[in-house]
Amino acid sequence: MNFVPLRAVADPGYIEIIDQTRLPERVVTVRIDSDAAAAHAIRTMQVRGAPLIGATAAYGVALALAADASDANFARAYASLVETRPTAVNLRWALDRVRAAVMQLSPSQRANAAWREANVIMAEDTAINRAIGELGLALIEAIAVRSREPVQILTHCNAGAFATSSLGTATAPIYLAHRAGIAVHVWVSETRPRLQGARLTTVELREEGVPHTLVVDAVGATLMQRRRVDIVLVGADRVAANGDVCNKIGTYEKALAAHDNRVPFYAAVPSPTIDWSLADGMAIPIEERSANEVLSPVDATLIAPTDTDVFNPSFDITPARLVSGIITERGICGASTASMLALFPEHRPRTFDHR
Amino acid sequence: MNFVPLRAVADPGYIEIIDQTRLPERVVTVRIDSDAAAAHAIRTMQVRGAPLIGATAAYGVALALAADASDANFARAYASLVETRPTAVNLRWALDRVRAAVMQLSPSQRANAAWREANVIMAEDTAINRAIGELGLALIEAIAVRSREPVQILTHCNAGAFATSSLGTATAPIYLAHRAGIAVHVWVSETRPRLQGARLTTVELREEGVPHTLVVDAVGATLMQRRRVDIVLVGADRVAANGDVCNKIGTYEKALAAHDNRVPFYAAVPSPTIDWSLADGMAIPIEERSANEVLSPVDATLIAPTDTDVFNPSFDITPARLVSGIITERGICGASTASMLALFPEHRPRTFDHR
Repeated sequence: MNFVPLRAVADPGYIEIIDQTRLPERVVTVRIDSDAAAAHAIRTMQVRGAPLIGATAAYGVALALAADASDANFARAYASLVETRPTAVNLRWALDRVRAAVMQLSPSQRANAAWREANVIMAEDTAINRAIGELGLALIEAIAVRSREPVQILTHCNAGAFATSSLGTATAPIYLAHRAGIAVHVWVSETRPRLQGARLTTVELREEGVPHTLVVDAVGATLMQRRRVDIVLVGADRVAANGDVCNKIGTYEKALAAHDNRVPFYAAVPSPTIDWSLADGMAIPIEERSANEVLSPVDATLIAPTDTDVFNPSFDITPARLVSGIITERGICGASTASMLALFPEHRPRTFDHR
Repeated sequence: MNFVPLRAVADPGYIEIIDQTRLPERVVTVRIDSDAAAAHAIRTMQVRGAPLIGATAAYGVALALAADASDANFARAYASLVETRPTAVNLRWALDRVRAAVMQLSPSQRANAAWREANVIMAEDTAINRAIGELGLALIEAIAVRSREPVQILTHCNAGAFATSSLGTATAPIYLAHRAGIAVHVWVSETRPRLQGARLTTVELREEGVPHTLVVDAVGATLMQRRRVDIVLVGADRVAANGDVCNKIGTYEKALAAHDNRVPFYAAVPSPTIDWSLADGMAIPIEERSANEVLSPVDATLIAPTDTDVFNPSFDITPARLVSGIITERGICGASTASMLALFPEHRPRTFDHR
């Protein structure tokens, strides 16, 4: 993958991101050297994807501390960054990681420590991508051995390199399978309104040489009905403790179609994306974005009358009952509290710990 | 409704259509004075919608006969028109109607008879729209009496005035409810790739003063999950004898979401849209259109790399088991062979007629 969506430059201390709103036409690199610039990049979706916005926010507070390491400035930067996007839990998780790492230190030590913690978050994400990729690879291999045809994988939105530090989440098994010589073909749903499937996933699959076909979102179900999909792999922005998966709007419809046609449906979920505090996905806050994203798909041209009322929720909730499994860095588990806690016993509620 | 999508001008004998590819920006009227022009209008989707393409094709052969009323010219015009779009059965049905009406006549009588038959097809469609509207109105009234809130209706694509001769099919119950003073609100799914929901349905709902909100296609399921839809009303391009519904791509996903959330899902189906010769919807030919419709949603700007592979089927099949009912001009029936034949006994297979 030649595209690096976020590159930390340790000295003099800034990050460079690829402005994902300019793809596929142009690869524009933007320098982020303040928490305000980081917040802007997250809010305008120059960077997006749960792991990547977490990492960007971590560097954002590090940049804030480099300018002013006071408690007050940290609190200000934290507050401004955490509100940039409401749905992905990784944002708060990453900011809390940095806070825990630096706030006991003297102000003079904080900026460097925060930068190091952001680097650790990135390095951990790379390791998580790899682990998810290897676990998901086994699922793809199991399909490949039953067939002489390429393994047909459907993905939605971009849970790829452009959403993370390296191999992506949903894409990591695909890249490892392709690199291992397993024939795969990816159905990319375009993902209205922001078109991350069309704009980003196609670009990175092309870069990796993975065969793929672009479809409008509505085509997923008919592909599954006609036995042209072996497995659905998606990412997640937040997963509740019961296994409900919050991901890009449209994921729930893909899961319904997979269930109706007995196609396995897996979410690739780094553990920082699991919100153990939420019993149920319906409590996850769903970001609503501007009407303009719907009314003007590519430029100023309107697809409906000017002041048409629009409802534009960015995410939906796929009930756990429709999810075949969750691929975490520790293993693949069922979408249930018991199954998830078996992999992450440190999150068992204390009241259940009678030892 | 101020928009008349097709107007027949008897003397000197041409039709005027609204070029639906130019909406919502411009209302451009196109004069159609040959079968070639009619075929072009259907193929390029200047006119679309199963009933409207049937009527346009009927006028098309009438125009061909006005130029040359020979059997050979009729056969040529029939062949060129019937292949313009493969999925909607109304196209062949309308052409066969005209053939039956004129081919026993002497050539000098054919053009006028064909024109009259096309007028009859239009008039019948208007009556069908009205009958479907009144039957569907009863469904909306039944919801309205249980609630003080506006009745929430979701529709997909455009099965409206722009698809027919007058009130539309799926929209007819909505217009009659609105005119009867019942509070309704319509969720309009934009309907990628051609955006008929955004470009056409919003325009006609606005014209009629019906409150509505535009959403991307993927939002339908989450609206139903959150109890914000009382009923789904869609049209159809062809219905098989078992009640499988072929309609615009994305309809199947809406039906899955409706089923999962116990939202009633009805297809409004004029009887010419029923293909009694097909036992099963999976045998319906599904039109595939150009990659360009997907890659360039509004103008020349590409949403994915230039030569990205695209699969662009225009329609999908909703299995009868997901359909709450079919609203025909004769009554509302279940989506099953037995229930449909009870309304249309003339289509009972002959082997079952032992009298």
